[in-house]
Amino acid sequence: MSAEHDYSIILQNRVLVDVDINPMSQKKYVELEPPSLLNNQADIDRLTEALGNCYRNLSVPLPLMNKISVVLREADWRVTVTVARYGDSWQLIDIEPGDQVSCHLGLAIDIGTTTVVGYLVDMVTGRVLDMAADFNGQVEYGADILTRIYWAATDEGRTQLQQAVVDTLNNIIKRLSLSKGIQGQAISAVTVGANSTIVHLLLGLDPSRICMAPYIPVVNLPGFINASAIGLAVNPQAPLYCLPSVGSYVGGDVIAGILASGLHKKPELALFVDIGTNGEMVLGNNEWLVACSGAAGPALEGGVARDGMRAEPGAVYQVRIDPETRATRYRTIENQKALGICGSGLVDCLAELLLAGIIDRAGKFREGQEFVVVPAAQSATNKDISFTQTDINNILRTKGAVNAALEVLLEGVGCQMSDISTFYAAGAFGQYLDLESAITIGLYPDLPRERMIRLGNSSGEGARLVLLSEESRLEAEDIARNITYFELNANEVFMNKFVGSKFLPHTNLDYYPTVKEKMIQRGLLND
Amino acid sequence: MSAEHDYSIILQNRVLVDVDINPMSQKKYVELEPPSLLNNQADIDRLTEALGNCYRNLSVPLPLMNKISVVLREADWRVTVTVARYGDSWQLIDIEPGDQVSCHLGLAIDIGTTTVVGYLVDMVTGRVLDMAADFNGQVEYGADILTRIYWAATDEGRTQLQQAVVDTLNNIIKRLSLSKGIQGQAISAVTVGANSTIVHLLLGLDPSRICMAPYIPVVNLPGFINASAIGLAVNPQAPLYCLPSVGSYVGGDVIAGILASGLHKKPELALFVDIGTNGEMVLGNNEWLVACSGAAGPALEGGVARDGMRAEPGAVYQVRIDPETRATRYRTIENQKALGICGSGLVDCLAELLLAGIIDRAGKFREGQEFVVVPAAQSATNKDISFTQTDINNILRTKGAVNAALEVLLEGVGCQMSDISTFYAAGAFGQYLDLESAITIGLYPDLPRERMIRLGNSSGEGARLVLLSEESRLEAEDIARNITYFELNANEVFMNKFVGSKFLPHTNLDYYPTVKEKMIQRGLLND
Repeated sequence: MSAEHDYSIILQNRVLVDVDINPMSQKKYVELEPPSLLNNQADIDRLTEALGNCYRNLSVPLPLMNKISVVLREADWRVTVTVARYGDSWQLIDIEPGDQVSCHLGLAIDIGTTTVVGYLVDMVTGRVLDMAADFNGQVEYGADILTRIYWAATDEGRTQLQQAVVDTLNNIIKRLSLSKGIQGQAISAVTVGANSTIVHLLLGLDPSRICMAPYIPVVNLPGFINASAIGLAVNPQAPLYCLPSVGSYVGGDVIAGILASGLHKKPELALFVDIGTNGEMVLGNNEWLVACSGAAGPALEGGVARDGMRAEPGAVYQVRIDPETRATRYRTIENQKALGICGSGLVDCLAELLLAGIIDRAGKFREGQEFVVVPAAQSATNKDISFTQTDINNILRTKGAVNAALEVLLEGVGCQMSDISTFYAAGAFGQYLDLESAITIGLYPDLPRERMIRLGNSSGEGARLVLLSEESRLEAEDIARNITYFELNANEVFMNKFVGSKFLPHTNLDYYPTVKEKMIQRGLLND
Repeated sequence: MSAEHDYSIILQNRVLVDVDINPMSQKKYVELEPPSLLNNQADIDRLTEALGNCYRNLSVPLPLMNKISVVLREADWRVTVTVARYGDSWQLIDIEPGDQVSCHLGLAIDIGTTTVVGYLVDMVTGRVLDMAADFNGQVEYGADILTRIYWAATDEGRTQLQQAVVDTLNNIIKRLSLSKGIQGQAISAVTVGANSTIVHLLLGLDPSRICMAPYIPVVNLPGFINASAIGLAVNPQAPLYCLPSVGSYVGGDVIAGILASGLHKKPELALFVDIGTNGEMVLGNNEWLVACSGAAGPALEGGVARDGMRAEPGAVYQVRIDPETRATRYRTIENQKALGICGSGLVDCLAELLLAGIIDRAGKFREGQEFVVVPAAQSATNKDISFTQTDINNILRTKGAVNAALEVLLEGVGCQMSDISTFYAAGAFGQYLDLESAITIGLYPDLPRERMIRLGNSSGEGARLVLLSEESRLEAEDIARNITYFELNANEVFMNKFVGSKFLPHTNLDYYPTVKEKMIQRGLLND
């Protein structure tokens, strides 16, 4: 059986990776011969023998043993067992009366620094039955990840941060359960796509060495953990599997993204970019993978700009400037009166200012120091909402870091920008950003648009694939094992390129043919 | 490396089974390269990689992960890890600074209905470093096993009984730890030889169906359980392994005994007997094994006889009657004034009365209804301590059951009493019983004495072998799998033989040539 198109979490109108369903937990209906004096096997031996050789090294956890004896008799020796993978072995994790094979659920989770999304997955069809999202409860202890890492340095802080995200997950599980009329106990496997620090905090591990040279996590591949060990309100014997990290800065969310994109299985060179607080980039194909990461900084998340804000109602998310009249049109989330500008709005501003000739290729205003996007009379704050020179400089730094990182990777493998055949944009930012604007400012490469793919929540999609397919899980571990990581901290080549890559869209305009063409058309390349 | 002679728990002056040491837990010293920007593996990946491919499917439990990061750094990347088998996989269960390979401990336990014995085993040499014994704390809730089974029918009762025996074990662990100056935490694997009911009570499993037809235990082979799951005060990640049972009435203690005797590896036919409250019997060789069991009853434990008592100070444990003068000599435990007669004393009484012609071969007093063993003037109770006709009848029932069971087994496999080549007597009763008396009353077969072997605590010895040798563990599971069990309950052949097998030493005197010879010499076969 195969996962079909519309089951995918990826928001793009196409599925990138299709898998055979061979899930992390499995259900099987068995009818046993009732015991007699002539057939007096123990209950558990009788049951495991009936399961035959389907499940290698099948073990039965102590807490289930009494339940097995009771259910076998109540159900007149006709039962459904749930088994789950724990590495190379299987564990029996539940027993139900009668045939319950068709009701088989798993949970794929994307845990972001800010937002957590849970997908309730039908393990029979592969379909996402429902999803629920919430803010990561850890935000209370620090909006940014560094604050949380410091907070987690003590046992108490670590416990609080773990509890906060587990509470968030349990709240999501509760909402999904209510909506589908099930018990959390019915969820028999959980997979997580998250960065290395979030995985540490989820598991109660000390993340403090992640942000200090030489940046060493406690663990990259935590393996299969009992969901009950961290207090998840699912089947207490269910396996919790976090997608592996490559190191402190290329986490399971990125591995999930690669897996969901399928780039590791194709011969052509592809670039995978996830720009958030931290920017990660993976370049490669079916033969090799290289990666790097660096603090992209919150410049693009709206948190740093003077009039920036998160992508919440009232945020300006789209901006258009008429190159002739300089008249400005904008859109806000939920059409509410403008409160500020969110990330995609900032990128739009920068691109439109360049194409309108209001700033030059170095990002300098030709006149003045700011541009009014929403005049005070229209804003909810009764003040002008503007885009300033300082905002531009911040975004240019982020963009420059992304450009420099890509060049380091390309040089490292002896490839050129023009060799890149496909581009994958991961993450919520990649989902909502205006593609043309991102290309115009040089944040994204200038490729034929049909080869530029927004992945949406590829961290969640990768988690879904691993939940549904043992082959995908092994692939994810292979990807993590085979990625060569380029450390940019203290990398001199990177620093040099970074300093030199603050032009719009790029120092070498020939890398950006469509942007060059637009600028020529508008007479902007004469100055 | 091999376990040497004096390391064995078996009290006989010879070792029956010698094993290559390949223990359930293992220790390994490793020196790791410290991390750097160029070698930034996660701590746990670094460690498991250094362990190489020694340990198949090695996993690291979540509770150890933070500790690993701390110890690696404190110990300057030179550490000793302890790993333990969990079935076909390995788990890392401890990490210590420096080279601690030489200090490696395991615990082998024999849990009897009345007595618990723990053996602290050096996992490097195989040697028993120390032992400690105590009464099974469950005695408080019922001296006999049936009372405990009834008590365990409720969750509360089950919890109390589990806690009672765990407390006993933890007390033994504490005493062993104090005596050897170690922490309980240093014990990295635990094995248990016990009957099926005791294993159920230890693990908190419901034993209620063990004593009701068709006598179905919850589990025969509980497998590897985290010691912390039942609250043992050893390394919380240590595996707890209970030797497998064959069914409700042939328990892990018997499998341990077979393993310790080595009878399953020899071509000649051997009989293994463990007579306690319940009597178990195994007949076989390296090709096949058959077993049966039945309530031997407490007749031989001194609990039922009018003046019977446990083998405690003041108990008459040896009796001799002069066939001419009928003068009686006796010995008491610790030479204290006689309080009563314990099991071995009762068997002596019966044998000596027969050989002195005071009772006939049917066990009937030729005159009177009892025999005074200790006159009132010598006893601690100021009353005669006697052996009565009722006592004789009780013992004859037990003996008859043993004889009948053996005949059912022999018939079942088409063998004769005379085919039995070696006899193994297991258990504390088998250890202290006078061999000649046991033969005289027909409880034991009349074989050349050098082929009659007392095993002592073979349940504890089997547990030690399984602790030290993976091969022995697999053998134990093979033994359990391959034993054919003869159910005697509701077995008509058994009932007929039982009714007809109450003569002393046996209906067919030719099975007992040395007893026949003695009786002829004393002119006892003329009547």
